[in-house]
Amino acid sequence: MAEKIVIIGSGPAGHTAAIYAARANLNPVMFEGFMAGGVAAGGQLTTTTEVENFPGFPEGIDGTKLTQLFRDQSKNYGTKIFTQTVTKVDFSKRPFKIYCDDEMTEAEAVIIATGATAKRMNIKGEHDFWQRGISACAVCDGALPIFRNKELAVIGGGDSAVEEASHLTKFGSKVYLIHRRDKLRASQIMQKRAIENPKIEILWNSEVSEAKGGAGGLQTISINSTVDNSMRELAIGGLFYAIGHKPNTDIFQDWLKLDETGYIITKPGTTQTSIEGVYAAGDVQDKIYRQAITAAGSGCMAALEAERWLEGLE
Amino acid sequence: MAEKIVIIGSGPAGHTAAIYAARANLNPVMFEGFMAGGVAAGGQLTTTTEVENFPGFPEGIDGTKLTQLFRDQSKNYGTKIFTQTVTKVDFSKRPFKIYCDDEMTEAEAVIIATGATAKRMNIKGEHDFWQRGISACAVCDGALPIFRNKELAVIGGGDSAVEEASHLTKFGSKVYLIHRRDKLRASQIMQKRAIENPKIEILWNSEVSEAKGGAGGLQTISINSTVDNSMRELAIGGLFYAIGHKPNTDIFQDWLKLDETGYIITKPGTTQTSIEGVYAAGDVQDKIYRQAITAAGSGCMAALEAERWLEGLE
Repeated sequence: MAEKIVIIGSGPAGHTAAIYAARANLNPVMFEGFMAGGVAAGGQLTTTTEVENFPGFPEGIDGTKLTQLFRDQSKNYGTKIFTQTVTKVDFSKRPFKIYCDDEMTEAEAVIIATGATAKRMNIKGEHDFWQRGISACAVCDGALPIFRNKELAVIGGGDSAVEEASHLTKFGSKVYLIHRRDKLRASQIMQKRAIENPKIEILWNSEVSEAKGGAGGLQTISINSTVDNSMRELAIGGLFYAIGHKPNTDIFQDWLKLDETGYIITKPGTTQTSIEGVYAAGDVQDKIYRQAITAAGSGCMAALEAERWLEGLE
Repeated sequence: MAEKIVIIGSGPAGHTAAIYAARANLNPVMFEGFMAGGVAAGGQLTTTTEVENFPGFPEGIDGTKLTQLFRDQSKNYGTKIFTQTVTKVDFSKRPFKIYCDDEMTEAEAVIIATGATAKRMNIKGEHDFWQRGISACAVCDGALPIFRNKELAVIGGGDSAVEEASHLTKFGSKVYLIHRRDKLRASQIMQKRAIENPKIEILWNSEVSEAKGGAGGLQTISINSTVDNSMRELAIGGLFYAIGHKPNTDIFQDWLKLDETGYIITKPGTTQTSIEGVYAAGDVQDKIYRQAITAAGSGCMAALEAERWLEGLE
């Protein structure tokens, strides 16, 4: 028999959907993934250390610990969690089919919460200093004490990169915006903002090739010129990647309407996708806010919408 | 000098906005209210006991305690909180003016998170059994152990009332839908759902006049016929009000676009109101989902939108 609800993904969106669906007696099944999208079950929060901006934790909480709390709560209310990655779906008719390799599960409703993965540079030293000076989220991490009054660097050239650099000027003594080309991809207004901000210095035609440091974390980065390949070292206290995210939507692209960058399109103000009975919550459908708490909110919306829709079917 | 951001309201939306704004060094000022809308600072959560569906608390958490955690977190990051109720605003030009009686504060951006108040019947005994058998939120409270396999009652006749009654059939042994008229106000499809559900019995032309019980909570309700004024007693384990909410928007009605029931209209998928620089988050702009976690998510959105907008001004 088909499950009532299958949830794909296990970040704040997936687990909040599970908590609501489980408390509504819908017996949700969650495929939490096994290093899906290159990230452990629990999603991007597992790649952070201190989370200061999830409401309810006045002293902050470790990202991995927070995801464990979410998971415990889903389970406490009866969510069946499988540590498997969904490899294929068939949304051609209901019940929908969800495959983990050869194993097939049928579901009346599906909530997609597979998230997005911050792109990384894969430079030398990156792994060693990830979350020890290197971050993919200035909004999340910029206010942390380790970055206060330090010289910081942002890699990127788009609107997000300028926005993250501006945000970081509130905390750092100076922010380098490192871009590999000789002009920014950002909109005119954002370029102007970067250029006019006295605390931002743009390093043109520059690529970061290595991160170095010690026990205390990141200390210097090596920067190569894309023009003459000359190399310089820059002492910094923090390096922020703003080179984009990849939504984890490969397996859905034949079925759902995606935008030009691969994000699932939902009806604004809801989590409804282009197929009735399929909902999308969290970063997989959000390239604007991308926060744990906004993801959680949309997971709740998806569960309530799915519940109402399932009741209409009966 | 004008404040950068003033936040009006102190529920999950207001405090999440405050946490984000404070961490972005915007020095937010919050007017948390003093019994504003008939509810203590902290909002509707303070009128509940156990909150099971806010992610991060696998064992559930007391509503008042959760609001205290939100408040501590806002303060820890530097929010200035005033226990005053905003009595008037002037949004005719920037900086906006916010009044608490005669005291005036100016702000470049305003986030409205004043919430909504669930309407009450004000029947005899209501105060004694509020959250001890009487609730205004079936989605929040229906799954609590005290309601399992009990006969339950919902008061109301609209779509929400039918939805809450349907939701409660998953937990209770039977659900009475008590309506004072001889037909429901709900849409045709929802009426059909109520009538065809074998676990729902509609009590037509009926008004609840009193709630009675003992140390263990609510036990019986008195029901008066609106036709012949005859009275009967009904033994029930839970009474749910589904007679609507009143958004706390009286002081904004001269300035912002509201819908026909008084909710602030925001651009879908955002928290932008009809005035640039004024944002609305939480239940004051949401009559669909109305959950603590959705409110918190929208509070975060409001702070990020306000931050981006303020950066554009500079």
